[in-house]
Parts: sequence; structure tokens; C-alpha cells
Amino acid sequence: MTRPLSVALAGLGTVGGGVLRLLRENADLVAARAGRPIAVTAVSARDRSRDRGVSLSGLRWYDDPVALAADPSVDVVVELIGGADGVALALVEAAIAAGKPVVTANKALLAVHGATISAAAEQRGVALGFEAAVAGGIPVIKLLREGLAGNRITRVAGILNGTCNYILTVMRERGREFAEVLAEAQKLGYAEADPATDIDGIDAAHKLAILAALAFGRKVDFAAVHVEGIRAVSALDIAFASELGYRIKLLGIARRVEAGIEARVHPCMVPQAAPIARVDGVFNAVVAEGDFVGRVMLEGRGAGAGPTASAVAADLVDIARGRATPVWGAASGALSDAPSVPMEAHVGPYYLRLMVVDRPGVIADVTAVLRDHGVSLESMLQRGRSPGEAVPVVLVTHDTREAAMRAALARIGALDAVMEPPTLIRIEPG
Amino acid sequence: MTRPLSVALAGLGTVGGGVLRLLRENADLVAARAGRPIAVTAVSARDRSRDRGVSLSGLRWYDDPVALAADPSVDVVVELIGGADGVALALVEAAIAAGKPVVTANKALLAVHGATISAAAEQRGVALGFEAAVAGGIPVIKLLREGLAGNRITRVAGILNGTCNYILTVMRERGREFAEVLAEAQKLGYAEADPATDIDGIDAAHKLAILAALAFGRKVDFAAVHVEGIRAVSALDIAFASELGYRIKLLGIARRVEAGIEARVHPCMVPQAAPIARVDGVFNAVVAEGDFVGRVMLEGRGAGAGPTASAVAADLVDIARGRATPVWGAASGALSDAPSVPMEAHVGPYYLRLMVVDRPGVIADVTAVLRDHGVSLESMLQRGRSPGEAVPVVLVTHDTREAAMRAALARIGALDAVMEPPTLIRIEPG
Repeated sequence: MTRPLSVALAGLGTVGGGVLRLLRENADLVAARAGRPIAVTAVSARDRSRDRGVSLSGLRWYDDPVALAADPSVDVVVELIGGADGVALALVEAAIAAGKPVVTANKALLAVHGATISAAAEQRGVALGFEAAVAGGIPVIKLLREGLAGNRITRVAGILNGTCNYILTVMRERGREFAEVLAEAQKLGYAEADPATDIDGIDAAHKLAILAALAFGRKVDFAAVHVEGIRAVSALDIAFASELGYRIKLLGIARRVEAGIEARVHPCMVPQAAPIARVDGVFNAVVAEGDFVGRVMLEGRGAGAGPTASAVAADLVDIARGRATPVWGAASGALSDAPSVPMEAHVGPYYLRLMVVDRPGVIADVTAVLRDHGVSLESMLQRGRSPGEAVPVVLVTHDTREAAMRAALARIGALDAVMEPPTLIRIEPG
Repeated sequence: MTRPLSVALAGLGTVGGGVLRLLRENADLVAARAGRPIAVTAVSARDRSRDRGVSLSGLRWYDDPVALAADPSVDVVVELIGGADGVALALVEAAIAAGKPVVTANKALLAVHGATISAAAEQRGVALGFEAAVAGGIPVIKLLREGLAGNRITRVAGILNGTCNYILTVMRERGREFAEVLAEAQKLGYAEADPATDIDGIDAAHKLAILAALAFGRKVDFAAVHVEGIRAVSALDIAFASELGYRIKLLGIARRVEAGIEARVHPCMVPQAAPIARVDGVFNAVVAEGDFVGRVMLEGRGAGAGPTASAVAADLVDIARGRATPVWGAASGALSDAPSVPMEAHVGPYYLRLMVVDRPGVIADVTAVLRDHGVSLESMLQRGRSPGEAVPVVLVTHDTREAAMRAALARIGALDAVMEPPTLIRIEPG
């Protein structure tokens, strides 16, 4: 056996503690699978005195994480600080510049700065592992970049944020509203005190940007991802979804269409029979469709100390074994230049819910607007009667261009009889 | 870009044709992901004149597949002949002896001769890829060997044979008997004319032997796998399963227990809520449980030209990139020597169905035997009454040792009032 791989760990929160534990508890089998021992030898975190439940004795301590990159006895730097900029970025850049492989769980960093970081890594010939950045313990990076390497990928869709999936699951199971369930999730520790990054879809969009780059072999492009969160999802829409045979899920979807690559995160209506519709609670799942393999789904825990540590360890074993893969699956010169397609060009079926005054002629006005914009209806549903009051009306369209849908909605929202801004949820095959 | 990787293909059936098509149709993206082109340059098959729907022009033809190994311009040998012995074995041994990496879809070969083949590959330092041998297009080998490398795996369970899963699915959906559904599956091409390898569980056992070796880091040991097929599964048991909240699935299960490693293939009752219970038709799925990652499930098409070609291509890309991994995940010196545990030592809950004469005292006799063998009952179910006739009685046990269960069954089967050999189906968490 060759000498141990010496790892520097920056960030000793939940995940950092998990990595330390894993590399100690499973040292024997990690060494067997890696062909050499893997040991953390240096660490950096904000507070040296905090009790983390793991011993730091024998480890070199650095107050400045960026200094880890310069430690001559460090072989690999693991970045678990988080955040797209600041010290995380500085550390990753310094490690690459020093010719040291980097393993990171930082999706924001990769989504925003992935293009420049990957260029630097390629130029220096160092590995950049980020299995932990998407879907926690599920090895979806390896799936797309290696396992399905023979396929032209046509579509990737995933439940990429456990907080949102937990909230939507509880809303459905208990028939409750978003705000209540969010407050409860915060109490239980399933949602952050500041939940915006999760519930506004930003976290899922970071991960989707990474998946889209891998699936379609192009540089990561976070700015091109269309993002909507789950704040506007109501108990009423979830109930209608069930009635129509759907589940509402926050999906990240990247799809190859004629004009280029679509990348979007938004609530979706997914048929109940689709495997991804049944992935509930804090679980994540990714569906990939390839021209030869067909549809493959990978499901598991998307967050937490254990699953994330598992992903970090897999990257470290790859590095110890010398198994290298270009960051986006191909060398930069061989990457695709397929353009990003704007959301307005999206084509698909839509679920539309209106609150309208219950009086004759309203449906005729609404459907006339839809007809004028070339929107074709598959079904219409109006439950209950309350003459003169607001009642929900649900419309399901055939394939429609998003731009037409938005134009129609602007006019429908302005109708006298329409009492609230219309709710629009895209329908996806799952 | 370096020079192309030159591939020899032995066997030009459905899968061989698929590999040829994939490497041609996706040549550009395979080259980008592999860092160099991958091209088939030599082939061998039984009948040169047969029309396979793919052009063989420009390829060197060999009547003797073993001669491919000696072709000096061949870099990698892909074995798609099949069969545990004979020419497939001879070709793989010759290629390894010649220092050429081998990619194979041959589960029988690996299950039976994997220990000696892997030793030879390790000694010669050549790669042996077999992603296509288990679960078709689903990259489960990569999942276990690399993606979950940081975990102590505690259990692997899978739907590993699409023919069996298709038959069990149709039996349930249409309430039909095994023999009828098998005959229909044969007509539709979902089952072979000689279906024994599939329906008797042999094929699933070959695959499970491979998964068990990978999951627990030890040499493959097919002889230690307990194998039962699906011939004895009846429409009646499937109906009772539904009533009790289960699905009947043929699972391959490898599990770490105190005494060592259990490996078994048999029909199982799985809770309907378990994700694997909903994997229907010809789909395959594998669930892996690791100490850090928790439970991960991978689902997709387990057979067919496209999915199998996808798996072969993934192995070829790994070889082209120089990404190497020891056959069973660790060098032979670092493999585990955990013993195999015989089926008699298995402990778990059981479903037991008896056909008994409907008369007073029979249940008392049966439960007395179970009590004598220390078998504790969770529930008992008797539907309908037909005094003096045979009626089904279903018993569900708490955790029971298989040896005790078998001893009890021998005595129960010998009771006067028991009209047919008892049916025993093990209950699994999924």
C-alpha cells in the first residue's frame, strides 16, 4: 500500500464532522477501496473551541482556511465552507493554483463560478470532485458523467431540494397551507431560519445548473436557469392535482429541445404513476433519459451529515485511485455550445386555476382569450356553485408555448370576473 | 486527442448489434467523454452471412472469437457470447493473458469463474469491466464499487430478472396463473423458449453473486447463493399478498449478519409502500443500504440491446480514460474473508399458506406444531367456509429461524388435514 492520502478539511459543521467520522470509522474499508489510507491531517473552521463531538487532536489547525492550500503535506483540499464567493472561492482557487485536487459540496460556488474554476482545474491538471454538491449521498454526478457516458442525454429531471419536497409532502398529506407547514418545518429543523434559498428554488437551481452542464456536456450556466419556488403553491392546487391524477413537485428540469437546452426549476404537476411522484419527504431523486439506456432513476437522501460525507468520501477514493474525469465530462475544447433556450420558448401542457365570480358568461370570456392566443384546452373543471361569489375554475391545456400562455394570462387576469391573479403550474411527464 | 481505442467485439446478437450502433451513432460524444475515439475494428460471430441490420464492412472478421485476443491492433476485447464456460471463458482468459482489458456482459461467467478471472486480471494489471452483466443499463456496479465506496454496505436487494418481474406483474394485474402468463410471455418474446434460467432464479442468482462480492468486498461465490424461482408462486398467494399489504417480487438479497454474509434469491413479500414494490414489468431495480448514505435505489431497464450497450460503452469510456478499479472493489489481498451464511440460519418473518380441511381442531394442530418449534405468529387469516372441503389458511410469523420453520413445515405437511404441500414465502422490508 502506498502512503496515505493527506486531506485538509475546511469547514467543520455538520457535514465536516460527518466526513471526519466516516474517514475514521470506515478507515479500513476506505483504504481497501482506495488502495491507500485516506486521513484528514489538517482542518480549519471558525471557532476552534466549539465541541463538535469529534476529536481534533493530532490535526493541524488553521484559522485561515485559505492557508490549507499552502500546507506542503496536504494532498487534497475538501471545501465545506459554503457560499458562492468569499473564502470558499478563495480556498478553491488557491488549492487549484497549488496543483492540489479539490473536493467540494458547494453547489452555489460551482453554479456561479464553475466555468472559471473548471478552466483553472483543467489547466493545472487537477481533479475537482463535487459529488456532494448535488443530491447529497446519491451518486448522480457519477451516474451522468460516467455511468451513462455512452448516451445522448435528452432530459434530466430531479427533486433536488429536500426542504421543498418535505413541505409539499406535508401540505398534501395533511391538507395544510404553505406558511403553516414552513413554520413547522423550521421548528423541526427541516427548514432554515432564513428559508429563501430553499423555498424560492435557488438551491435547486444551483444543482440543476450543474446537472445540465454534465448531462449536455457544456459549461455551467446558472444565469440561464429559470427559477420559481414553492411559496405560491396552495392547498387548493394540491387538492386539484390529486383530483386530476397528479402530484405537485418542485422539479429541476434540463431538456434538449430543437433550439438548444432548456433549464428550469418550478413547481410541476407530475402524473401520480410516475416513479418520481412517489418520492416523498426529504428524499431526493433524479431521472435521466438517454437515447440507449432509456429512463434511469436514482433515489436517496439528498442532505445530512451521513449522505453528504458518503459523497465526499467517494470523490476522495476516486482521487486516491487516480480516477480522473474532466469537470463537465469532456475537455473544455470538446464541450457543446448548444444555446440556452429562454423560458418563453418552452412548450408543454399547463394547469391553470382561476378564482372567478360564479355568473353566466365568465367561462366563455376566459376561453375566448385562450382561443385568441392559440391555447387549446384539454379539460375544464368547476367544482361547486356559489352564485355571485368567487369559485375556482381549473383549466388544463394541450401543448402550449409559454409566451402565448403568459400573454393570455395577462388578459385573463385583467378580466372583471377574475378575482385573484391566476395560478399557473406546468405539467411534466415526471 | 490520442489515437482511437480499438475494440474487438465477440458476439453479434442483439446486444452486439446495439454496441456497434451506439459506438457509431454517438461516436462524437463518446470520443468527447472518453478523451479519444472508441471504434470497433474486429468482430467475431457464428454466422458471417446473417443480416444484422448493421454494416460490418471495414471490420476484420474472425471465425474463431478467441483469435480476437491475439490481434495485435486490438486494444480491448468485448465478450458478448454468453455462457459460463466454453468459448466465452477461453476468450476472456486469452485476452487477459495477452494483457488486454476485457468488457463482458456475461453474468454466468463472472458468477462461476469470477474468482479465477479476477485473479488473472489483477496479476496482469488489466481492467475487467462488467457493468452490463448486472441490471442492464443501470450502472449498479459503478454505484456499489465507486459511488458508495465510503460506506460499509449492510444490505443489497434487487429485482434482477425482468422476465420474472414481468410474469409476477401480469399475474397480479390480471389475477392469472403462472403457467398461462409464462406461455404468453414466451409468445411476446419476454421469456425464452427454454425459460428455466430465468424463472428458476439462476440468472438472478448469477447477478446477485456479483453484487454480493462488490457490496461486501469479497470474492464472488455463486455456490453459496440460495436459489428459488417463481414456478411455485400462485395467483392465490398473490391475492393474499395484496390483501395483507404486500407485493410478491423475486428479489436477490445479500445481507451482512452477525455470522457473515447471506446471499439468496427467492420470491419475497414486500410491503406495498416500499419503493421496490412498485417497480413493475421488465424494469430492474437495486436498493443498497450503507452506514453513512442510508438507502439508495437505482431503477431502470435491466435488459435489451440499448440498455446493455449503454453499460458496455460506460466500461469502454472508463478504459479509454484509464479509470481503473479492482474487480471486487479492492485488491485481492484486501478482500474480506467474511463467511457465507447458509439459508438454514436465516432469520426473518414468514408467510405460510396451507390448504386444510375445513373442520374443527385443524388450526389448533397446526399452531401446536409451530409452538413446538418456537415459531411465534403475528397473524392468521382464514377466508370463507366450506365444511369438509379444502380451504386456504394464511399464517404470518414473527422473526423465525429458517431451520425451525422448515422443521415445523415438515411436520405440518404430514398432518392428515393438510391437503397440499405448504407454501412458504419470506417477508422482506423491500
